[in-house]
Amino acid sequence: MASEVAAKDEWVKLNVGGTLFMTTKTTLCKEKKSFLARLCLDDPDLPSLKDETGAYLIDRDSRYFPVILNYLRHGKIIVEPTLHIDGVLEEAEFYNIQSLVEQLTEKKNGRDTTVQVGDQK
Amino acid sequence: MASEVAAKDEWVKLNVGGTLFMTTKTTLCKEKKSFLARLCLDDPDLPSLKDETGAYLIDRDSRYFPVILNYLRHGKIIVEPTLHIDGVLEEAEFYNIQSLVEQLTEKKNGRDTTVQVGDQK
Amino acid sequence: MASEVAAKDEWVKLNVGGTLFMTTKTTLCKEKKSFLARLCLDDPDLPSLKDETGAYLIDRDSRYFPVILNYLRHGKIIVEPTLHIDGVLEEAEFYNIQSLVEQLTEKKNGRDTTVQVGDQK
Amino acid sequence: MASEVAAKDEWVKLNVGGTLFMTTKTTLCKEKKSFLARLCLDDPDLPSLKDETGAYLIDRDSRYFPVILNYLRHGKIIVEPTLHIDGVLEEAEFYNIQSLVEQLTEKKNGRDTTVQVGDQK
Amino acid sequence: MASEVAAKDEWVKLNVGGTLFMTTKTTLCKEKKSFLARLCLDDPDLPSLKDETGAYLIDRDSRYFPVILNYLRHGKIIVEPTLHIDGVLEEAEFYNIQSLVEQLTEKKNGRDTTVQVGDQK
Repeated sequence: MASEVAAKDEWVKLNVGGTLFMTTKTTLCKEKKSFLARLCLDDPDLPSLKDETGAYLIDRDSRYFPVILNYLRHGKIIVEPTLHIDGVLEEAEFYNIQSLVEQLTEKKNGRDTTVQVGDQK
Repeated sequence: MASEVAAKDEWVKLNVGGTLFMTTKTTLCKEKKSFLARLCLDDPDLPSLKDETGAYLIDRDSRYFPVILNYLRHGKIIVEPTLHIDGVLEEAEFYNIQSLVEQLTEKKNGRDTTVQVGDQK
Repeated sequence: MASEVAAKDEWVKLNVGGTLFMTTKTTLCKEKKSFLARLCLDDPDLPSLKDETGAYLIDRDSRYFPVILNYLRHGKIIVEPTLHIDGVLEEAEFYNIQSLVEQLTEKKNGRDTTVQVGDQK
Repeated sequence: MASEVAAKDEWVKLNVGGTLFMTTKTTLCKEKKSFLARLCLDDPDLPSLKDETGAYLIDRDSRYFPVILNYLRHGKIIVEPTLHIDGVLEEAEFYNIQSLVEQLTEKKNGRDTTVQVGDQK
Repeated sequence: MASEVAAKDEWVKLNVGGTLFMTTKTTLCKEKKSFLARLCLDDPDLPSLKDETGAYLIDRDSRYFPVILNYLRHGKIIVEPTLHIDGVLEEAEFYNIQSLVEQLTEKKNGRDTTVQVGDQK
């Protein structure tokens, strides 16, 4: 719970394709090698830009972003029936979150028989 | 009705993952042990931060939040067909609303044969 | 048509759970005994508060509110397939719009065989 | 294409029930007798009001408005599966777009066997 | 990745029918002959106008725009179940993205047997 309501420098604003999101560094850094971890750690090899409100600009679709963020927040993959799993997979690949890419690919190929989260009841 | 249109210090702004919500302390305090009650009562053990508009920052998904708030407002669990019950359950656990966690779990496991609210007609 | 594009003091701003709506007094006053009629007529028995933009604060879910407003605007009940009828009914009860409560209850109980509006084609 | 990216006085802001839309006079004037043509031509018989951002205030539901605008833009009727055809018809009648009212009524009554646009593939 | 987080003059704001989107010139210029490439390259034959926030004004429906942008970003066609394929096709034609028009037409006519992206799993 400490990570959700945290010190001021913990909070990060993201402008994903024109839509604002707010989250914490703790969430973004869950997957060390991901684009999001590198972004909020200001990796010098990753040129980044902020908009006028101080939000990191990311040229991606905002509709899938909550699924990505939730995975980093609590580790579960929950895809709403209004979203396309291919869209989420595409974003997982862009953000370079390997464990998510793998689970989504398994899910898509129907080889995922153990994980129940994500199957509408 | 008195609680819905109330004195100025009754209203609370919440920034849930980048999306603004407004509600009252009466609503947030319905479940004493919940994260939301502790937040609006400024529990010293719960470090919190507000954004530049004075809204409490919460690092969670905004899409499920209306279901949580409605449960606190009127006590019923109504999950839209566009939302995933696993997503709501995850939030109920985070916000530490035990009665909601229990009812959602029963609903999910199909053991819920009495409650009709939440089943699309 | 006169009521839709009307004099300046005809327009009312509403902040429903954090989301802004605009409508007219004529629309809000369609059902005399409703919470919304009392609100815009500044009923002294109904303590009310406005946000910093001058919008009346209402502690309810914004997702169902368009269905309520439309009913006041044109008298028809049209519930989108993405919305839960129980959610609309709950709001109709809160806003104290008796004719809407009755029709929704009939609809829900399947006793509504005459009204065709609201059944997806 | 000339009409879409046009001179400054071509652009019109509309505040539909609290939600902002932007379009051009060319689009709004496609149907001469419609409410929207009369609005943007400042018909003296149609009293109108603008909000503080200069947008014309319209007391209608914003969710159906894109379908109406698209019809004026390109002449096709495309109703998303999340929207109710009765809701679109109601708006077409309010905005007084006769050709749209007729086609939607035919569609609704199932007498529309030629037009394929609007049937999900 | 270089193109997503890029230099300041790389970023472009678009106001599509009243809704704001942000993307990069690299994305918009993927299809040389498209309306979007001509727009961001300030083609003198394409008269354009910006709103007060510096966003290019485009008189089109914002709901389909993410599908168009995603196609330019990663080359895949992913249409959510809440969207109508005819609506996307109409936009692809307006924006003059020939490869997208062709693939969507094939998809719609059911002649598309190889591409699996876009078919909900």
